[in-house]
Amino acid sequence: MAADAPPDGSPRYDTVSFLSDYGHGDEFVGVVHSVIHQLSPGATVIDITHGIEPYDIRAAGLTLARSVQYLAPGVIMAVVDPGVGTHRRPIAVEVGSGRAVFIGPDNGLLAPAVGLLGGATRAVWLNDAEHQLAAPGPLFDGRDVFAPAAAHLCNGVPLTDLGEEVDTATLFPGILPISRVEDGALVAEVLWVDRYGNVQLNVDPDELDALAAEAPADRPTGSSERSGGGHFEVLLDGSRRTARRVVAFEDIAPGAVGLVVDSYGLISLAARQASAAEDLGIGTGDGVTLRPIVDSDDTSDDAGDGSAAESVTAVRVTFGRRPTPSDPASTDVPGGAG
Amino acid sequence: MAADAPPDGSPRYDTVSFLSDYGHGDEFVGVVHSVIHQLSPGATVIDITHGIEPYDIRAAGLTLARSVQYLAPGVIMAVVDPGVGTHRRPIAVEVGSGRAVFIGPDNGLLAPAVGLLGGATRAVWLNDAEHQLAAPGPLFDGRDVFAPAAAHLCNGVPLTDLGEEVDTATLFPGILPISRVEDGALVAEVLWVDRYGNVQLNVDPDELDALAAEAPADRPTGSSERSGGGHFEVLLDGSRRTARRVVAFEDIAPGAVGLVVDSYGLISLAARQASAAEDLGIGTGDGVTLRPIVDSDDTSDDAGDGSAAESVTAVRVTFGRRPTPSDPASTDVPGGAG
Amino acid sequence: MAADAPPDGSPRYDTVSFLSDYGHGDEFVGVVHSVIHQLSPGATVIDITHGIEPYDIRAAGLTLARSVQYLAPGVIMAVVDPGVGTHRRPIAVEVGSGRAVFIGPDNGLLAPAVGLLGGATRAVWLNDAEHQLAAPGPLFDGRDVFAPAAAHLCNGVPLTDLGEEVDTATLFPGILPISRVEDGALVAEVLWVDRYGNVQLNVDPDELDALAAEAPADRPTGSSERSGGGHFEVLLDGSRRTARRVVAFEDIAPGAVGLVVDSYGLISLAARQASAAEDLGIGTGDGVTLRPIVDSDDTSDDAGDGSAAESVTAVRVTFGRRPTPSDPASTDVPGGAG
Repeated sequence: MAADAPPDGSPRYDTVSFLSDYGHGDEFVGVVHSVIHQLSPGATVIDITHGIEPYDIRAAGLTLARSVQYLAPGVIMAVVDPGVGTHRRPIAVEVGSGRAVFIGPDNGLLAPAVGLLGGATRAVWLNDAEHQLAAPGPLFDGRDVFAPAAAHLCNGVPLTDLGEEVDTATLFPGILPISRVEDGALVAEVLWVDRYGNVQLNVDPDELDALAAEAPADRPTGSSERSGGGHFEVLLDGSRRTARRVVAFEDIAPGAVGLVVDSYGLISLAARQASAAEDLGIGTGDGVTLRPIVDSDDTSDDAGDGSAAESVTAVRVTFGRRPTPSDPASTDVPGGAG
Repeated sequence: MAADAPPDGSPRYDTVSFLSDYGHGDEFVGVVHSVIHQLSPGATVIDITHGIEPYDIRAAGLTLARSVQYLAPGVIMAVVDPGVGTHRRPIAVEVGSGRAVFIGPDNGLLAPAVGLLGGATRAVWLNDAEHQLAAPGPLFDGRDVFAPAAAHLCNGVPLTDLGEEVDTATLFPGILPISRVEDGALVAEVLWVDRYGNVQLNVDPDELDALAAEAPADRPTGSSERSGGGHFEVLLDGSRRTARRVVAFEDIAPGAVGLVVDSYGLISLAARQASAAEDLGIGTGDGVTLRPIVDSDDTSDDAGDGSAAESVTAVRVTFGRRPTPSDPASTDVPGGAG
Repeated sequence: MAADAPPDGSPRYDTVSFLSDYGHGDEFVGVVHSVIHQLSPGATVIDITHGIEPYDIRAAGLTLARSVQYLAPGVIMAVVDPGVGTHRRPIAVEVGSGRAVFIGPDNGLLAPAVGLLGGATRAVWLNDAEHQLAAPGPLFDGRDVFAPAAAHLCNGVPLTDLGEEVDTATLFPGILPISRVEDGALVAEVLWVDRYGNVQLNVDPDELDALAAEAPADRPTGSSERSGGGHFEVLLDGSRRTARRVVAFEDIAPGAVGLVVDSYGLISLAARQASAAEDLGIGTGDGVTLRPIVDSDDTSDDAGDGSAAESVTAVRVTFGRRPTPSDPASTDVPGGAG
């Protein structure tokens, strides 16, 4: 629990949430748990996942952003660190004036999640050797730098004891792909393919609704509500499919793909008890364009020119928060947004 | 611990055992842990496994049944849920008048384990939104429905506060394959191939003993005891092998396969420090027929007609419990057996 | 924490560190956790790893040895057990007069870690059935023998209550490969390839320094210090490469491999954000020969005959401890070194 202040005013934490690309084949995860447990025996360590592909900072940053609103207040430690053993800084980033502290390499990994929690209030370069383990070699900062920092924070050690305070504006930013409207279609990208083959896009339901509403001959609102918003062409690299906007999985016909609001509030392509990713032949980072199909039964076949749709501007990917009209389009999610 | 009743008489639990097909590549398992930890900080969550193949309800049900007698009293949460986002019901099933509560989708997954613990005493459809997380989309009931229910039960919330009580007879039954005797041979099926390649069959040791005893010219009892019960033909789809009934692994010759009582009390085909499944070329769900071989050194070569063996009726797979003569043959393990 | 003696003088432990080859596909790990939790609810179980390849005792022993200095005092349970169901003994081995107790099969797996902690002070054959679970079959000693023993030790049950005390000299020894110097080159072996493709060798930095120092025309000490010790030929089965001794990853050129002191104090071949193992085409157990390259800019091209280097004797692999001159060359790490 955050905000249990000891006499000196520093918060204590009792939970460390832990994400990495360590996998479960080696002993890395276990050793990090062991180090934290010995330095702070009362702390609970919760593994978010360690299945990130080695060095995949983008996937790790997106995973952390999807998870962060469900994590316990406290320390959040994320280690995907292709720069270990180089001069990239190990950092601790405080958000919510102490509600949580993120720990990890300063390589952009933490930025999306920090941004979702309102931005950094303070940041520290973890360079105080007294609060680290002496290491024979430079390859395992999870064990030698990050785990001790997490444990010390749980014990009530003040953040600024762990190293030199740094300007949050100097933190490495994270990059998130932004969808955009072109010729009445939404040009999007695959953020994530989950274990079941669901394909998460960087598309907010409101964007899809706006696109359908601006299409030349939309269906009446009532009908659109019930179906979840009509049909869309799904244009992939070299192929095209049709997908219906649905509310529940059972509304997807066997063999078809549907567009569903997923459990994180974004639009996902999904199939019924099958892998949409496999069916469509796409993976993380691939481009997907969605174009509303005008229903012939209640509209003319006129495809329109989509010019109205162009007034819809690209919006920031907000992982479930509704974008506000004043939300600026942005490709940077600065960790130090204050 | 179950049965620590708070003032209102509802039991409290302190352990949640958790099985799923979530895998460890995504953050699903970690997010479920995080939700439970925040709603019920004192609860211990023990991961049974999350390595079930996506959507494999049968494998999950068998895994839960193998595990259940070793699990702590309390909440047992199992999520393999191809119907998530459809109208299948999320349920909580009480056994032993409160010794344990199973939580999961009503798709048959829970039924074998519930049956092994004596059947359901009460069941609730988890449809009280007040005890769930508000979800943007319908794909993650583990996080939004099952984890909160588990945490609330640990906190002493009465079962019937979580939703509408339902007749246990309406619960979706589980199906277990039953072995049968045909022409003096046992027609069985592979329930499970473990990491080491051991092949568990739906065969109780007593069934094999009965089969051998009924064979026309069995060896004397003393000899049978020592060897563990003689030799068997193992008939597979398109091939046949011989296997000896053995007590210990070291009694299996290198390159051979043996029939051993496994750690769950069922008959497994095993090899010595090698994969019997690979050697035999079989996997889960494949058929295996076992036929006693009459030893030529102490019996005639007369193969018999096996008519006596036909009086052995098929028995329910009981995962280690000895079948009683009155045990009815059954292919359904109803979750609501009362 | 060790050494919290109950009234009868036996230590209590509160942590069980747990390594196995069980994987995460089956329920083995979860069932072991469940058994420990029920017998000793206050104990914390930390998973080191369960990703050891089935039956790979050598890899498990090396993993345990790498981890052991970071593990909490208490019970350390390691189960890789190709001999389960045979007459190999399940054992408990005490080190540091009670600081830790190792539990596992007596097959050499525990020996390297026991040796690193100073050797066994007592050992017990876990053959007291009263402190085990009754098992229908012989295949799951982790659940039926080792987990109960770990839990009982956490509860303060004296070690010798768990079975018959045995002479530590009778314990099965572990075997570690030793590097040797031949013709001025170090003939070594791959101990481990980690998830990132770093290739750990059975080579201590001091051995490499000695080799370079004995080479006929070494560079001045100052230069050697800064570069980390010069260049080496890396001779593999059928190919050769050049590697520079470096301090940090960023000193390795893209596409090159470097020799770095890894996080365990041994020499590893590493690439920059790439897999050195894949680049070199080598894996665990493969031979690697390292030969110092005499720099042409500050020395003659005379390759020397390496005779001086031959006076360097092979040393014991010590996982980060500096070998002392009196350290005898040894291929056995006896678990019962006392």
